[in-house]
Order: sequence, then C-alpha cells, then structure tokens
Amino acid sequence: MHLFRRFLRGEMRLGRVEAFSDGVFAIVVTLLVLDLRVPTLNDHASAGELLHQLIELLPKFLSWLISFIIVARFWLNHHHVLGLARHADYGLVWLNAIFLLSQSFIPFPTALMGEYATNRLAVSFFGAVLALSTLLFLALHAYVLRRLAKPELAALEVPHIVTKGMIGPALYLAGAAAAWFSIHAAFAIYLLTPLFYIVPPQRERPAAASAS
Amino acid sequence: MHLFRRFLRGEMRLGRVEAFSDGVFAIVVTLLVLDLRVPTLNDHASAGELLHQLIELLPKFLSWLISFIIVARFWLNHHHVLGLARHADYGLVWLNAIFLLSQSFIPFPTALMGEYATNRLAVSFFGAVLALSTLLFLALHAYVLRRLAKPELAALEVPHIVTKGMIGPALYLAGAAAAWFSIHAAFAIYLLTPLFYIVPPQRERPAAASAS
Amino acid sequence: MHLFRRFLRGEMRLGRVEAFSDGVFAIVVTLLVLDLRVPTLNDHASAGELLHQLIELLPKFLSWLISFIIVARFWLNHHHVLGLARHADYGLVWLNAIFLLSQSFIPFPTALMGEYATNRLAVSFFGAVLALSTLLFLALHAYVLRRLAKPELAALEVPHIVTKGMIGPALYLAGAAAAWFSIHAAFAIYLLTPLFYIVPPQRERPAAASAS
Amino acid sequence: MHLFRRFLRGEMRLGRVEAFSDGVFAIVVTLLVLDLRVPTLNDHASAGELLHQLIELLPKFLSWLISFIIVARFWLNHHHVLGLARHADYGLVWLNAIFLLSQSFIPFPTALMGEYATNRLAVSFFGAVLALSTLLFLALHAYVLRRLAKPELAALEVPHIVTKGMIGPALYLAGAAAAWFSIHAAFAIYLLTPLFYIVPPQRERPAAASAS
Repeated sequence: MHLFRRFLRGEMRLGRVEAFSDGVFAIVVTLLVLDLRVPTLNDHASAGELLHQLIELLPKFLSWLISFIIVARFWLNHHHVLGLARHADYGLVWLNAIFLLSQSFIPFPTALMGEYATNRLAVSFFGAVLALSTLLFLALHAYVLRRLAKPELAALEVPHIVTKGMIGPALYLAGAAAAWFSIHAAFAIYLLTPLFYIVPPQRERPAAASAS
Repeated sequence: MHLFRRFLRGEMRLGRVEAFSDGVFAIVVTLLVLDLRVPTLNDHASAGELLHQLIELLPKFLSWLISFIIVARFWLNHHHVLGLARHADYGLVWLNAIFLLSQSFIPFPTALMGEYATNRLAVSFFGAVLALSTLLFLALHAYVLRRLAKPELAALEVPHIVTKGMIGPALYLAGAAAAWFSIHAAFAIYLLTPLFYIVPPQRERPAAASAS
Repeated sequence: MHLFRRFLRGEMRLGRVEAFSDGVFAIVVTLLVLDLRVPTLNDHASAGELLHQLIELLPKFLSWLISFIIVARFWLNHHHVLGLARHADYGLVWLNAIFLLSQSFIPFPTALMGEYATNRLAVSFFGAVLALSTLLFLALHAYVLRRLAKPELAALEVPHIVTKGMIGPALYLAGAAAAWFSIHAAFAIYLLTPLFYIVPPQRERPAAASAS
Repeated sequence: MHLFRRFLRGEMRLGRVEAFSDGVFAIVVTLLVLDLRVPTLNDHASAGELLHQLIELLPKFLSWLISFIIVARFWLNHHHVLGLARHADYGLVWLNAIFLLSQSFIPFPTALMGEYATNRLAVSFFGAVLALSTLLFLALHAYVLRRLAKPELAALEVPHIVTKGMIGPALYLAGAAAAWFSIHAAFAIYLLTPLFYIVPPQRERPAAASAS
C-alpha cells in the first residue's frame, strides 16, 4: 500500500505534470503568432503599401506582445508554485488542468482584441478572461500551500501571499471596466499588470531574509 | 545480450514514450482553441454585434470545453497506465501510437460538432470517435496489465478494471445514438462521461485499502 | 579540457537533442489533423449532405493515416538510433536537424496528396519527399554507427543494416513512379512501406541471439 | 534560507527553462511549414498546372529553409549557453523569455518574405527581425557569462566571444540594407549568415586547446 501511494503521488508524477504544463505554455505562447496574418497587397512589390499594412497591424502586434508577456509570467509563477509541492495528487492535477484550460484559451481573446481594437467589448473580454485565469491560478497556489507544500519552503512564503495575489484579478477587472471609457487606459493596464499581479517570488526572499 | 535487452526495454525508453505522448496531448489540447475563430463584424466598433456573434459561438465554446476535459482525462489515465509498466516494448509503443492517432484526430470531430451543432450526424460522429479512442486506450491498459505491469502495482488494481472500463465506450456510443433523438441529451452525455468512463485510479485506493 | 569536452558531448546534451526531436515529431503528427478541414454545408442540419462531404474527404483521411504511421515509425527508429549513441556531437546535431527539417515538411506533401488525390504529380511528390527523408535518416544512422555508437550495442546491430535500409527509399521511389501509372498502387505502396522500410530493431534481436 | 535559495536557483529550474525553450524552438520550427499552403488548381488532375504552382512557391520554400536553419542554429547556441550556467535566476528567465518572444515571431517575417519576395520592405524586415533576435541572444550569453557561468567552463570560452558575436547582427543588418539594392544579395546573406553569425562553440575548442 505504501508503495502504491508513493507511486500515485511520487515526484515522477510531478515531473509529468510539469512536462505537460510546459508543453501547453510553450504552444500557447507560440500559437499567438499565427494570428499575425500576412496582409494582402494589391501591388506585391510596393514597399509603401506594405508599410501601410504593417502599421495597420500595430494593434495585433501589441495584443501579441501583451499576451506573450502575460503567459511567460504565468509560466514563471506556475514554476514557482509547483516547485513548492512535495508531490502531485488528483486535486492538483485537476486544478492544474482547469488553469491550463484557461491559458490555452488566451489566443482567442488576444486575436479578438487584436482584430477589433476599437471594440470596447473585445478589449473588455480580454481582461475578464485574464482575471478568471489568474483566479484559477491562485486557487492552484492556495491548494498547494494548504495540502502539498514542503514545510521548509512554505514557511518562507510571504504571509497571505494568495490574498495579496487578488490584486492581479482586480487589476484585470479594472482594465476590463476601463475599456468602456478609454481603450488606451485598458491597454496600459493590461501591459502593466503582469509586472504586479502576484507578489513575485523574488520579493519573498528579502522578506524571508529579514525574518530569519 | 542482457545489456541490449535492457537497452531496448529500459526505463529511459519509457521516459521517451511518455515525453512523446505528453507532447501530443499538450498540442491536441491547445490546438482545440484554433477552431474558435474571430467572428467577422460589419461594424468593427459595435459591442452589440460582437456580443451577438459571441453568443452564436456558444456551441463551439461548449465543444471545445468538452474535448479539453476529455483529453485531460485521457492524459491522466494514460499517466496512470504507463506508471504501471516496468518498461516499454514494441507492442506498447505501437498500441500507444495508435491510441495517440485517435487522440490527435479529436480536433476534427470537435470542430465538426462545434460548427454544425444542429446536425445529428456531426454530433453522433463525435461520440463514435471517442468510443473508438477509449477502446484503443483500454487495449493499451489491458496490454500493460498482462505483459508489462510491475507485480506489486498490478496486484493493487481493481479486479476486472478493463472490463469495467467498457462503461466508457458504451456511454459514448449511447451519446452517439442519443444524437439522433435529442442533441441536448447527446451533449449532456458527452459532458458527463469523462467523470465516469473508466474506473478512476483514485477509486482503487480505497478498494486496495480494504483488501490490505 | 577533459571536463569541457565531456560537457560538449555529454549525455545531457543527447537528452536535449531527444527532447527537441520528440517535440518536432509530436507536433508534426498532431499538425497533420489541421488539414482535415470542416466541410462547408448548405443545409447545416442535413446529415445526408454531411455524410456526402465526409466521404469526399476520404483521400484526406487516408493521407493523414499514412503520414501518421510513417512519422510514428520514424520516431521509433529515431529512438533506436539515438539510443545507440554514447553522446551527441555537432555532426549528429546537424544531421539530426536536417532530418527533422524533412520530417517537419511532411504535412505539406500530405496535404497536397489529400487535396489532389487524382493528381499524379501530387501523389508522386509525396513518395519523393519520403524517399529523401529516409535517406537523411539512414545518413544519421550510419553516422552514429561509425562515430558515436556504444561498442557493445553496435556489435549487436544486424550487419549492413544501413545498406539494407536502402529498401525504404527504393520502395518510396517505386511508389512515386507507380503514381504515374496507377494512383491506387502508389497509395498501397505508401501504406505498406512503413512496415518494411528499415530492418526493424526487433529483427536484430533474434539475429543477435543466434549469433551469441 | 540556504535551502530556499538552492530551490529557487537550482539545477531543476534550469531543466524546466530548457524544456520550455526546447518546446518553443520545436514548435516554431514546425509551424514554419504551415505557411506552405496547398495551391488552388483549376484542373485537379493536371500535373502540369501543379508543377507550375509548385515552382511559383519556390520563394516560400526558400524562406522556410532559411528560417529552419536559422532557428536550428539558435537552438544549438542556446543549448551551449544554458550549458554554461550553474543555475537559473530571474534575470536569466526573463532575458530568455524575451529572446524566445523574438524567436516565436520568426514565422511572421518568414511568411511575409515568402509571400512578397519581390517586396524590398518584406525582405528587409526579415533581416531586421533576425538582427534584433541575435542581439537578444547575445544579451543572454553575456548575462550568463557574467553572472551564472560555471568558472571552469567560462574560462574555456573564447575571449570577447560576445563582442565577436556582433558580426551576426551586423550581417543581418547588411542583408536588410542589401534588400533595397538587390533582393538576391539579401537572400544570399540570410542563407550564409547562420554559418557565421556567432563564433560557433566548436571553434572554441581548438582555441582553448592551444591555450592549455
């Protein structure tokens, strides 16, 4: 029984959860570029027409950039959270799957915002999806801390880290609301939020250092 | 000779089978979103028109959600089955390849069902494909149990687990049949089946516990 | 110097070559399904029209099936060949990259053959690409055997295995030629060749056993 | 504290950075083929028309080939640079993410150059993107050498390797400039640059050998 339990929850399992997650993150991040479609030119050799078309694509480039940075940030935090876990259990695997579901959805709101950058609903929808995805991530973080964390690492986490992480969804929702007043404000919030939306793990180190 | 046999069947090989399978699962799950195409708007800035178009996309969102959960569930069970194996042999590799063939096919019936949610054949086809894929998975499970299982883990498997697993294909076929009478019933069956279609590994633990 | 050489050629490096290759194989195999496009129906709810359209797609299904089996077979043989190597060097990495270039190209001739199954050039082109890809694989195999093989494993390889492997390209070229006379014959050759095109590693075991 | 620091910067982390990077490289390299679209034929069975269409696709084939070789070369150098690192820190992870952002962008300029091979801006844009991506790679290389390198490996690196690596961006910019005078010259530069653009690690070995 002991062996079987170890097998079901062992480190190797955690390795496969990470491999699957890394695969999903890497694909999401790379698929984003597929939405940058080659424009149609009347005069194939006209540099001027192409330049004009590339400038028209700027909202798509910006959406792509924002989503890439956001997903890279999620990958980094995901990395941190799974690194806290002693092993994987079924709760972790399913919370992780639902979180990845929300991540793999990101190319759709990104494409929508890139295509219709002047549409308030499109810009607002992007923020709502990211707020939801961040909430799912915080649920995963809370689950790992409560049930699976290596005690010596959990003790070094900033107190109330998950509660503080709620700033992230709040900012994305603020962006989603801002879109109805100023689309530029919404874009700015989306671009800046990945820099704040969860207390970054490196901040914990000074905090932990001052506590030790 | 001993060395060569160990090489051919070694643990490292199993690691590469898992890596390849994880890759396929991760890509399938992420490609599903590509079928969620950005709708075409007459008035780019109209939130009302976009809302209307997003509501029109609901069957696609639902098909995507169902397939994501199903593939995630397959990934989890696949994980369990390969974890039982001592090593990989050519039988396992080919059964696994044919199973992955059926998994990599899933985006097609998913897109078909999402596009033509009122078409009984499209909805029925989805169930038939999943019934077949589950049968291929059960063949893999049976092969591992009979030929490659670590004895101490195989002993803890629920008796007749593969036979019980036939509930899965039966439910998918029931969904495929239901589509000809009620498309809503078919969707409901597809959504609920991943929760039942194979005796989940965590059920085995209480069973094993009561036996020990 | 000794350390640096070990680093450059070490086992870890081989692991990353395998990881990159597994990624490419997994993506190629899964991208193949993207060519199975959802057909356009005049009457969305018509099962009869959909059935008719799915039957029209049969050449695409067949092309997809053939390519999946071929790539899976390549993956398996690739697995075998890299398993023979003590370590990776720059020759291996580049031969491997050029081989993967030819593998990543396969979705294009597959789509071409699926779309224009009655076009002799499209069917012939498929065979020519696979002949070339198999030749690149044999070059990789020969390189590993000559320069990087673990001696105890190389000794167990069937003599002249690479020369025998030329049956593969020869069969694909025969298929490419047959396409100009009978497209059905070409399809049959493409479907059967993966079963023969390189002396499979499992044949070596009895041969090795009789030699030991 | 010691344990937590080791966890945050440990070898395992570096492994996940590599896995994520390998995933992105493998997907970029394989997605390139998606731009090779099946041509539209008026007479489906006409080999002559298909041949004509395939010849029309030659600039796309060439763009695909150039980008594949360039990304494979980046993968190899990336491999070398991460192999120098003792561990990963947040600086490395973010520099790596920004470098991968530029790599995942490559399918877009590749498709643009393939579609509009006579457009000087399209051909020039390709070179500018690659110059930027190479600069980001050199920044990553410099960061690893300065902050994270294993001393015994760093000592074997060619002196001023990063400065010498500036030849790469310079060549790509030369290609981008050449496109305004001769598109053929630009293509030639793009095809030849991966052979030179960074002092390849194997050159370091003789240099290191002569120094030891």
